[in-house]
Amino acid sequence: MPDKPLPPYIGAAYYPEAWPEGTIDQDIERAKEIGINTFRIGEFAWSRMEREEGQHDFGWVHDVVNRLGEEGFAVIMATPTATPPAWLTKKYPEVLAVDVDGQPYGHGGRRHGCPASPKWRALSEGIVRKMADEFADDPHIIGWQIDNEFGCHVNESFSASAVARWREWLKEKYGTLDSLNSSWGTELWSQWYTDWDEIPAPVKCGYAHHPSLRVNWKEFSSDMYAECNREQYDILKAAGCPNVMTDGMPNFHRLDYETMFADADLVANNCYFPPDQYRAIIGECDWMRPIKDTPYWFTESATGWTGGFQVGSLYLPKPGSIRARGWLMTALGGEMVLYWLYRQHWSGQEMLHGSLLTTYGEPTVGCEEIGLLAEELQTAGEFLRETSVPQAKVALHYHTPSAWILDTEPQVPGLQYDSAFNESFHGPITDMNVMRDVLFAGADVSGYDLIFSPFMAYLPDDTLERMLDAVRAGATWVVGPLTSIRSRHATLFRDCAYGPIERALPFKVTKRFPATGIDPDIVWTDPCIRGKAKAWCDVIEPDGGATDIYAIYESGPCAGQPAAVDIELGEGRIIVLGFRPDPADTSWLQRFVSEAGVKPVCDATEGIAVVPRVGDKQNGWIAFDWKGLGGHAVLPSDGVDILTDEPICPVVSLCPYGVAVVKSS
Amino acid sequence: MPDKPLPPYIGAAYYPEAWPEGTIDQDIERAKEIGINTFRIGEFAWSRMEREEGQHDFGWVHDVVNRLGEEGFAVIMATPTATPPAWLTKKYPEVLAVDVDGQPYGHGGRRHGCPASPKWRALSEGIVRKMADEFADDPHIIGWQIDNEFGCHVNESFSASAVARWREWLKEKYGTLDSLNSSWGTELWSQWYTDWDEIPAPVKCGYAHHPSLRVNWKEFSSDMYAECNREQYDILKAAGCPNVMTDGMPNFHRLDYETMFADADLVANNCYFPPDQYRAIIGECDWMRPIKDTPYWFTESATGWTGGFQVGSLYLPKPGSIRARGWLMTALGGEMVLYWLYRQHWSGQEMLHGSLLTTYGEPTVGCEEIGLLAEELQTAGEFLRETSVPQAKVALHYHTPSAWILDTEPQVPGLQYDSAFNESFHGPITDMNVMRDVLFAGADVSGYDLIFSPFMAYLPDDTLERMLDAVRAGATWVVGPLTSIRSRHATLFRDCAYGPIERALPFKVTKRFPATGIDPDIVWTDPCIRGKAKAWCDVIEPDGGATDIYAIYESGPCAGQPAAVDIELGEGRIIVLGFRPDPADTSWLQRFVSEAGVKPVCDATEGIAVVPRVGDKQNGWIAFDWKGLGGHAVLPSDGVDILTDEPICPVVSLCPYGVAVVKSS
Amino acid sequence: MPDKPLPPYIGAAYYPEAWPEGTIDQDIERAKEIGINTFRIGEFAWSRMEREEGQHDFGWVHDVVNRLGEEGFAVIMATPTATPPAWLTKKYPEVLAVDVDGQPYGHGGRRHGCPASPKWRALSEGIVRKMADEFADDPHIIGWQIDNEFGCHVNESFSASAVARWREWLKEKYGTLDSLNSSWGTELWSQWYTDWDEIPAPVKCGYAHHPSLRVNWKEFSSDMYAECNREQYDILKAAGCPNVMTDGMPNFHRLDYETMFADADLVANNCYFPPDQYRAIIGECDWMRPIKDTPYWFTESATGWTGGFQVGSLYLPKPGSIRARGWLMTALGGEMVLYWLYRQHWSGQEMLHGSLLTTYGEPTVGCEEIGLLAEELQTAGEFLRETSVPQAKVALHYHTPSAWILDTEPQVPGLQYDSAFNESFHGPITDMNVMRDVLFAGADVSGYDLIFSPFMAYLPDDTLERMLDAVRAGATWVVGPLTSIRSRHATLFRDCAYGPIERALPFKVTKRFPATGIDPDIVWTDPCIRGKAKAWCDVIEPDGGATDIYAIYESGPCAGQPAAVDIELGEGRIIVLGFRPDPADTSWLQRFVSEAGVKPVCDATEGIAVVPRVGDKQNGWIAFDWKGLGGHAVLPSDGVDILTDEPICPVVSLCPYGVAVVKSS
Repeated sequence: MPDKPLPPYIGAAYYPEAWPEGTIDQDIERAKEIGINTFRIGEFAWSRMEREEGQHDFGWVHDVVNRLGEEGFAVIMATPTATPPAWLTKKYPEVLAVDVDGQPYGHGGRRHGCPASPKWRALSEGIVRKMADEFADDPHIIGWQIDNEFGCHVNESFSASAVARWREWLKEKYGTLDSLNSSWGTELWSQWYTDWDEIPAPVKCGYAHHPSLRVNWKEFSSDMYAECNREQYDILKAAGCPNVMTDGMPNFHRLDYETMFADADLVANNCYFPPDQYRAIIGECDWMRPIKDTPYWFTESATGWTGGFQVGSLYLPKPGSIRARGWLMTALGGEMVLYWLYRQHWSGQEMLHGSLLTTYGEPTVGCEEIGLLAEELQTAGEFLRETSVPQAKVALHYHTPSAWILDTEPQVPGLQYDSAFNESFHGPITDMNVMRDVLFAGADVSGYDLIFSPFMAYLPDDTLERMLDAVRAGATWVVGPLTSIRSRHATLFRDCAYGPIERALPFKVTKRFPATGIDPDIVWTDPCIRGKAKAWCDVIEPDGGATDIYAIYESGPCAGQPAAVDIELGEGRIIVLGFRPDPADTSWLQRFVSEAGVKPVCDATEGIAVVPRVGDKQNGWIAFDWKGLGGHAVLPSDGVDILTDEPICPVVSLCPYGVAVVKSS
Repeated sequence: MPDKPLPPYIGAAYYPEAWPEGTIDQDIERAKEIGINTFRIGEFAWSRMEREEGQHDFGWVHDVVNRLGEEGFAVIMATPTATPPAWLTKKYPEVLAVDVDGQPYGHGGRRHGCPASPKWRALSEGIVRKMADEFADDPHIIGWQIDNEFGCHVNESFSASAVARWREWLKEKYGTLDSLNSSWGTELWSQWYTDWDEIPAPVKCGYAHHPSLRVNWKEFSSDMYAECNREQYDILKAAGCPNVMTDGMPNFHRLDYETMFADADLVANNCYFPPDQYRAIIGECDWMRPIKDTPYWFTESATGWTGGFQVGSLYLPKPGSIRARGWLMTALGGEMVLYWLYRQHWSGQEMLHGSLLTTYGEPTVGCEEIGLLAEELQTAGEFLRETSVPQAKVALHYHTPSAWILDTEPQVPGLQYDSAFNESFHGPITDMNVMRDVLFAGADVSGYDLIFSPFMAYLPDDTLERMLDAVRAGATWVVGPLTSIRSRHATLFRDCAYGPIERALPFKVTKRFPATGIDPDIVWTDPCIRGKAKAWCDVIEPDGGATDIYAIYESGPCAGQPAAVDIELGEGRIIVLGFRPDPADTSWLQRFVSEAGVKPVCDATEGIAVVPRVGDKQNGWIAFDWKGLGGHAVLPSDGVDILTDEPICPVVSLCPYGVAVVKSS
Repeated sequence: MPDKPLPPYIGAAYYPEAWPEGTIDQDIERAKEIGINTFRIGEFAWSRMEREEGQHDFGWVHDVVNRLGEEGFAVIMATPTATPPAWLTKKYPEVLAVDVDGQPYGHGGRRHGCPASPKWRALSEGIVRKMADEFADDPHIIGWQIDNEFGCHVNESFSASAVARWREWLKEKYGTLDSLNSSWGTELWSQWYTDWDEIPAPVKCGYAHHPSLRVNWKEFSSDMYAECNREQYDILKAAGCPNVMTDGMPNFHRLDYETMFADADLVANNCYFPPDQYRAIIGECDWMRPIKDTPYWFTESATGWTGGFQVGSLYLPKPGSIRARGWLMTALGGEMVLYWLYRQHWSGQEMLHGSLLTTYGEPTVGCEEIGLLAEELQTAGEFLRETSVPQAKVALHYHTPSAWILDTEPQVPGLQYDSAFNESFHGPITDMNVMRDVLFAGADVSGYDLIFSPFMAYLPDDTLERMLDAVRAGATWVVGPLTSIRSRHATLFRDCAYGPIERALPFKVTKRFPATGIDPDIVWTDPCIRGKAKAWCDVIEPDGGATDIYAIYESGPCAGQPAAVDIELGEGRIIVLGFRPDPADTSWLQRFVSEAGVKPVCDATEGIAVVPRVGDKQNGWIAFDWKGLGGHAVLPSDGVDILTDEPICPVVSLCPYGVAVVKSS
């Protein structure tokens, strides 16, 4: 039997249940030719594992796992709870998720189990427990995936179970109706509740529901999936399963992964950004890396194109970009790149999705690059295993509860949390070739020199405390725009604009107005920098000695009044931004970075990213051209490109979408 | 105790129920600083007035009214029936309005009481009666508002109560099924009814419902709100409440205010047109003014911006426009400008709406202009109280039942009643600085020299009679385009195109065709005027001696045939327009005005409007620049600007958005 | 009594039930003035024929038929089953069609009877049987129309009856659940069924339903209407009714007319394409002509404009185009042009639709051209009766089951079966003035030299066999693009890309990729022709001696690889196209035509179409200018224009929208 593969893992999702016996022989042969080493199986195969209630059949799964394991492949086992069998929902229709109009999601698609239904939970646990019994000790299985993309397609349910649970959940959170009423401000519009049963789920009403209710509903809905995950996690861990995780999809599903990933051995994610959105891919890596101490896994990505009923995003037009994307995912802290899917579906809802093999077993047009990537990952395997990405000096808070608020109330038309976060902050910093970590609100912030908390509409008290400590210890904290504008109930503050942070620091927000249609001119106190304010403008006045004006509105209804302040605190400083700087010009961001003493990894031409890798035994850099322009970087020291054995001294030149893995000498 | 304020009133909506005790002290202090004199309260506070069924608490309301009154403010009391409490709809779910798909509007928003539900009517009456008992005699209350914006958010209900009532309503209107069947022409498509219960509300069907049914449904839905209003009105008047009204929103809610305002002591309206739609604001004033003999009230308007979950229309970009808007509303016949709202909501569905104060009690950026306006209204108070706007010489019919028909059947794609009315008729006349009144179909038309009835798809018989009398007495009546093309059942006529008017007058409509894609050239008989026909074209032939051709199609399928006729009748004349004149060129309108001997108020540069004010003791003009261009007007005689004490002799110069209140000498 | 009119028939739909007695006198007088000879009546008049259940009244219908017949008009009688009376659906609510959300289509519109409801079927049969009893032998009735536009407005029903019938229908089609499961590939996503009752109709689910289920549902829904048609057909034929047909609307209603028209004596169709879509009108004629041996009927078309609640497509802007359209419909193989409608509706849902008379009985602006057309058809009557359009040399397969697949899964965004078929194939061939027939998949293909089968996603086995036979006998068959890419269950093949055709012929599809965003350059083996590949690209490699490469990708991910092959088979050849040729350049189509030895009818300038007419007694051509450009054609021999009596020798010149009916000498 061949050795079990070592990381980095590269492979694909595989659905042997859909194919005639014998097809697996061809599939294995092709996989070896391509050079992949990992398969993920099981995730939607419930009805094949349990044809009728209680009639379990895992024999075919054992056969597949054994066959793959014996041929030298690592196996990821997934639980199939995203797709309840037809007999199940027919027998237990109460487990169905229900849409906002009261209509159940029937059999025929995916994710129609209501996550708040106790019966659904019990049935899910049943199949997971059975799988754990069968496969927990299987030596070929290197990891377990819980469900598939919680929240995908259906991410809230208005079933009777869900509404009952919603009221319990509110009771747990608020304790008393008085507390809920006063926290939400339900006096307005006669919304006051005198009985828990009066509180609706946000179904049809005149105009729209109370935003505090809507934001709580989002949290509740996210929590239901987090509970589903936790229950499966506990079962699988109790059975001794290794590397238990669930595959997330941030941005898209809007779950609070800070809660979800607390019950996971490692961070896993599915990433379908097309080639021209490499900045978004880097963003996911920067976000996944700091969550756990172990390397993250990309459990899904596309080969040549995405698709369902028709072709979606395309990867083919830029030769080299599929390989470059795999390297990007790995270099920035990952140890697994899986593709969706191995052999193209011959039936069902996703026939038009790209794959490694066609339905008739031939390699597809994207396959060649994946083969090259597999080979290179092998070549660089030891370097990748013995090094990791060090903590950055710059951090940015990404905060799903704040995104819920801005999803519910965008403040001004067109403001969208993720695109604002990326376009104004994360993206431009990435472009500067400065390393950065994206952090949850609850993350440790020690060791960072410069921390951004933009668009963080709700700033939790403990995050504020942690940040003030970090500032006192020497960090620079850039707060805003639109940060701490809401309480944890999504209400405004009654005593000041920014609540706890305004109470804690010597500044005052006086005027507030939308920038839409005005776009006031801004001058930063550094006289070289001028720009425009976008989205929203707050006038922020110093209110004490240690506070300086940092930017001023030059036009608009508050011309001449301060737009940002600079507050000294202990060894550090806090910049409070009253407006969204125009993303078209990022010289102000350059200023923050250089004032905080943060340096780029090295000098490089546009679109060249260099990721440092450090370890006890070796160090180096992985460089790639992610814009397809080609270019070069001047590495901090000489080295050797592991992929080509060429010396780098220390300029590394890259062709479009080129990659160099440089071990320092 | 200070004197009760005299009109003009200026103030804001106020929600003390949402704020901690004591906040009112700061609110009153700020209101005095700003200079406003009126507050509207109560409108959504049902659940605070009646926490549980039958447990009324008006003590806090008395405290607020007394406090405000003692501090010198006028109070408007509003009934809270737009927002039933949660306990109410939980206990009596049958009162809920139901949408077209059969889904009830649940608790959580606004206006979810079904206006046709007898139980809802009874519960509404209950709270109104209680309020009348408590406050009818309160000396601080200068007026009562019934509900808030009937029809807003929910303007039709398909509940079982509503459908039952609909059939009764039809029975009352048509008497017999035979009458209904033959009036609607239900032979087509086997729509014939043999039982009242067969008549559906316009819920889901194949393709679409019969237009006669749909137009009747609109009338019925409007009537239900009118009945709700009437029931509250009767209660409040019986209790002796002063100045009882309901706040309308024409165009937007499409209720028949001719019926609704019959049960009101004065005309009140909410107006949220942004600054660049001043023509629409003037239109509302021109429409409100002639309805009653008393000055109208603007019960709501925006300060810096509108908003709900996000910012909506903006007022800030044009400095001076907030003040100019307030003056416009007053000069054209109003005595009250209220803003929505006083202190920004700290919770609920409308947090992002502009206000006079922030949540933390500071004046907002729009507040300064409102303070200036308040001061100026005070300065000009006596002039405003002692003068009013005289009846104009030009009138235009605005007819909601015709709008219902064109909403249901737009004739040609894109034709919209209000924009057609405004763009082709009211707006250009306003631009000419010619005073004009907008009239209901039932209004007295004596005293007008020139009356337009455009797009009046259904011309009621009594209106026709009244108009013919006016023409015989010397008026010019411009009828059409698309006027009298439908019966009162929204059907076409079977004997001619224009029904009663064609039967009554010596003309004949021969050909009819859509102008879309053709836009025939038009030549008016006055050879200087050429133009294009838009929307729809009727060929109108003289059919008797007193009729001349007034315009001719020069191209298109009826080239050379008459497009409009000029009919002498008694001392006056009637122009029947067979087409919509291109709104891009209004020289034809100029011709009507000058032929009718109507003069502009005075000469003025573009965007300067001059409103005459006359009274027993004094006379004068109010001039403003409503396009923000600046300019001047040559007043009919010399005078003094009350706001500045400057003499005007007689040229008045205005800066952008400038205002002059000129008392003639 | 005048003679019964001979074809060609020209007339209109007529609704005497909606008009006062006596109106018919005026209507008949006007019809004679215009010159039409045919009326269609009855189609929506159920409630007038049966006011209450069982109370039939056909007296008024007899009066109308007799009156029209005695005045010399031909009558088409239509069954009224598209519009059940209000009493019927009130008494039998179970007959209502139900929408995808479970909501019944109530009374008020059209087509709300569920075609799968046994009770509905029984009620429909009842009225049809009664009508047959009354009118089967009526000498004035020349034809019977079943229902009106099956599938219009409502083309699927999710009622309980329909869902029950759907499961039976599947059982009939698949026999066993195992067969269904394995044909559809339901292992994926745990879709496997263990009970027929588990199979849903495609109502709400998470994401979307299985494509095999969705495509079957389309077939089932189409079949239900075909069954309704068959049941009426059988009743009417059993009673001896002549010329029984139903009026279709291909493209729009997406029914499988190959099945539907099997139960019809002749092909009838409603055609509302506006004047600038003459290519689409020609397409309908080319499709209708080959289905039956008898001339087809156009049972509906528009006069001046279409419309319902507002005006729709317009015919007026191009003088002559209404007449030219009528000639086109006739010349290409028809013998009836009916307009919808005769006298404009004075009430109901279609008041804004164009007509021959206004509500008040005057001819409309489009009427003059129709009168001219009527006269000309009379003049050319003998020529038209004694000649017909000969079979073309070029054929194209049009295949509704393939359209269902591409409607469900468009492969790449924007690909639409009908527009792809028309823009890439039928339209350009029409432009070449080459005669062509559009064929069902089951049609006999003998006699054609060149047959195109594009976008035929599912290629039935028997069609393949028939085509291979035709090729062996000498025909050229152009297969693809995207032909035979799916099984009859809409799944992909597991052994190759093109299934049976790839198994049968010496080629292999190796790579496959979307063209979107790539649009590879193509070079055809004839070196003069270069172009672009659109939509989708398959690499098609020769796999045996008789196969040549016919086109090559010049760029993109498979540059240098073959894009089409040319296979010799017997006396003929097969071209397999791997890509959609750019419709902007059709030189490749010219090549096919000329290589197949097919000639245009004659030389003609752009937009001039010449249709050959042949017969035992006379021959000739009908020429028209359908683009409104004017021009000329050089006819194959001299002749005489029947309409003008002018000699043609042999150049015929046409003014814009001109027509010449040339009898060869």
